[in-house]
Amino acid sequence: MRIALEDLEALARGAAFLGTGGGGDPYVGRLLAEQAIRQHGMPEIIEPEDVPDDALVLTAAMMGAPTVLVEKIASGEDIVLSVRKIEERLDRKADFIAPIEIGGCNSMIPIVAAARMGLPLVNADGMGRAFPELQMVTHNVYGVSATPCSVVDEHLNAVVIDAVDAKQCENIARVVTVELGLSVLFSSYPMTGADLKRTAVKKTLTMALEIGRAIEAGRRDRDPLGALLQVLRKSEFYNRCKVLFSGKVTDLLRETTGGFSIGKCVVTSLNDPGDSCEVTFQNEHLIALKNGEPLAMVPDLICFIDSETAEPITTEGLRYGQRVHVVGTSAPAVMRTPEALDVFGPRCFGIERDFTPLEDLHDDA
Amino acid sequence: MRIALEDLEALARGAAFLGTGGGGDPYVGRLLAEQAIRQHGMPEIIEPEDVPDDALVLTAAMMGAPTVLVEKIASGEDIVLSVRKIEERLDRKADFIAPIEIGGCNSMIPIVAAARMGLPLVNADGMGRAFPELQMVTHNVYGVSATPCSVVDEHLNAVVIDAVDAKQCENIARVVTVELGLSVLFSSYPMTGADLKRTAVKKTLTMALEIGRAIEAGRRDRDPLGALLQVLRKSEFYNRCKVLFSGKVTDLLRETTGGFSIGKCVVTSLNDPGDSCEVTFQNEHLIALKNGEPLAMVPDLICFIDSETAEPITTEGLRYGQRVHVVGTSAPAVMRTPEALDVFGPRCFGIERDFTPLEDLHDDA
Repeated sequence: MRIALEDLEALARGAAFLGTGGGGDPYVGRLLAEQAIRQHGMPEIIEPEDVPDDALVLTAAMMGAPTVLVEKIASGEDIVLSVRKIEERLDRKADFIAPIEIGGCNSMIPIVAAARMGLPLVNADGMGRAFPELQMVTHNVYGVSATPCSVVDEHLNAVVIDAVDAKQCENIARVVTVELGLSVLFSSYPMTGADLKRTAVKKTLTMALEIGRAIEAGRRDRDPLGALLQVLRKSEFYNRCKVLFSGKVTDLLRETTGGFSIGKCVVTSLNDPGDSCEVTFQNEHLIALKNGEPLAMVPDLICFIDSETAEPITTEGLRYGQRVHVVGTSAPAVMRTPEALDVFGPRCFGIERDFTPLEDLHDDA
Repeated sequence: MRIALEDLEALARGAAFLGTGGGGDPYVGRLLAEQAIRQHGMPEIIEPEDVPDDALVLTAAMMGAPTVLVEKIASGEDIVLSVRKIEERLDRKADFIAPIEIGGCNSMIPIVAAARMGLPLVNADGMGRAFPELQMVTHNVYGVSATPCSVVDEHLNAVVIDAVDAKQCENIARVVTVELGLSVLFSSYPMTGADLKRTAVKKTLTMALEIGRAIEAGRRDRDPLGALLQVLRKSEFYNRCKVLFSGKVTDLLRETTGGFSIGKCVVTSLNDPGDSCEVTFQNEHLIALKNGEPLAMVPDLICFIDSETAEPITTEGLRYGQRVHVVGTSAPAVMRTPEALDVFGPRCFGIERDFTPLEDLHDDA
């Protein structure tokens, strides 16, 4: 895979779709990546199968509440420091940088790290989407340790965590994140190339770029939604999809609390005011319900897009009155295994339901 | 200075007096030290002037709320790990262990570290007493960095902090401490022998042992209070002292909140129910007031002792109805400089008063 400076907008847009409401603002992310690329050049992007088994792969991402992230932006130096702290702890230099999740900002942060550090970037991540908590990663599901994990703020305060498990790492990293102002850089799940190949969700940067390009091409043809659904259906990993609901945002509850942006959004049909859909979120969308029945649920993807432009809308971007489609998309198979559902299935978010795949909820998905 | 196993009780008791209500329970501390010494032998105790300028001195202590510390006890392995994490971060082995504060438990934790690691222990600390917050250390006052600082819990979760200043280190360490259950081990202010000699409060283990021994000898002579006051008066650094008030505990408000044990205690005269003294605390006692007028204030030492036995009473040991003396003692001169008062004077605890030395408040102190 190769990308150019002018691809960043499409990549960030598609990543924001996969970010399923979270993963950070694509505009902020793109500005950071553009600046780094102008200064340091575009990093080489490497397919996971081309990463040597014994290579050291380090991740780079932002953590916190997306509501804060849009106002408290990384400098770049902090991004690099988060990776350097892991190198220092392991006494070994990184060979590759990888995303830990795909989202509007968190697809861009690893580009910044790779560009500034002169390292290649791997076309794979640990979620195939975005999730709110540090343990909700395929690397954790399939046995890679979350730690050592670094947390760094814009003043270059730095914390390196070794924890007994990924959930404990999340708990520690979260309170540090809140203390440092709710938007920080972190590097977690240092891993070998072999572990990356065994546990990652693959080619997710490619998928994000294809989604972003499809939306843009669709706009020129005045059917961005159709183009979006088409690119998903023909994809290898995200091929079941459906418009779950369409209407306007009529109720929005959004609270920045406990280190997250938590709330719910109600979308009401433009044709029938009695017909509505409720989507709850913890940074990312968790479940879409209509009359108490699920339309889609985590780890399948639920994304709000603008009804005219198909622009993905992150949870912090939701506004009363917005006309939107709520789109459901199947998660990659590696994220729907029993082991994976134990880590980021509905019950991990307090939703007392067994996971039901999108295609089982809808014959036409 | 040499100490034997049978000195530990006196050392912990005297340290609890200097702990000025905080610094951890002396019984818990002594049990930990006794166990370590039985297994590993008594560490050599070195005077600060005998530490080479280029030696690496690392500290070891507990951090948290004393109310929790009495129930959630260190294993020893966690104490050593907190020091090892700093060695790992600095890529250098410690040459000496030092206390960071003197208190019932925190005089003992460095003995455990030194014994288990086979290192000598330095007869000096960073407070000459106990303080609740990590930046309230003479090493910080006189320019030694608090970081790298480690925080470790009994499960061996470990966090290493690099912060822009000591207060930011305290803020981060505090939220981690709360997350890890409000009683953890930590190592901070790694320093050279030269820095130690320049910034430490010296011979504080000796002072603690002498206070403990004086109380015990005084009990045999049925005047432990007299013996205590005498040993203080003839000491080099703590030579102004006074019984500020005597009576029984008639009101006690103690809350474990924000990572501390915070509250106040009212002592009422046994002779005159209208005559009382109020002492506020944040882990350690901060100010003693009578009719709104100060009897003593931080950084001078305020200690509750049992009126019969002169046993120091820590804030978590305060009980309604206890008969007590409230004893004020002058802090060492190094802790009363303008720079020092900027870091741990009354205003640093929200007390809107200038520091007035004990001897200026009482002609007979």
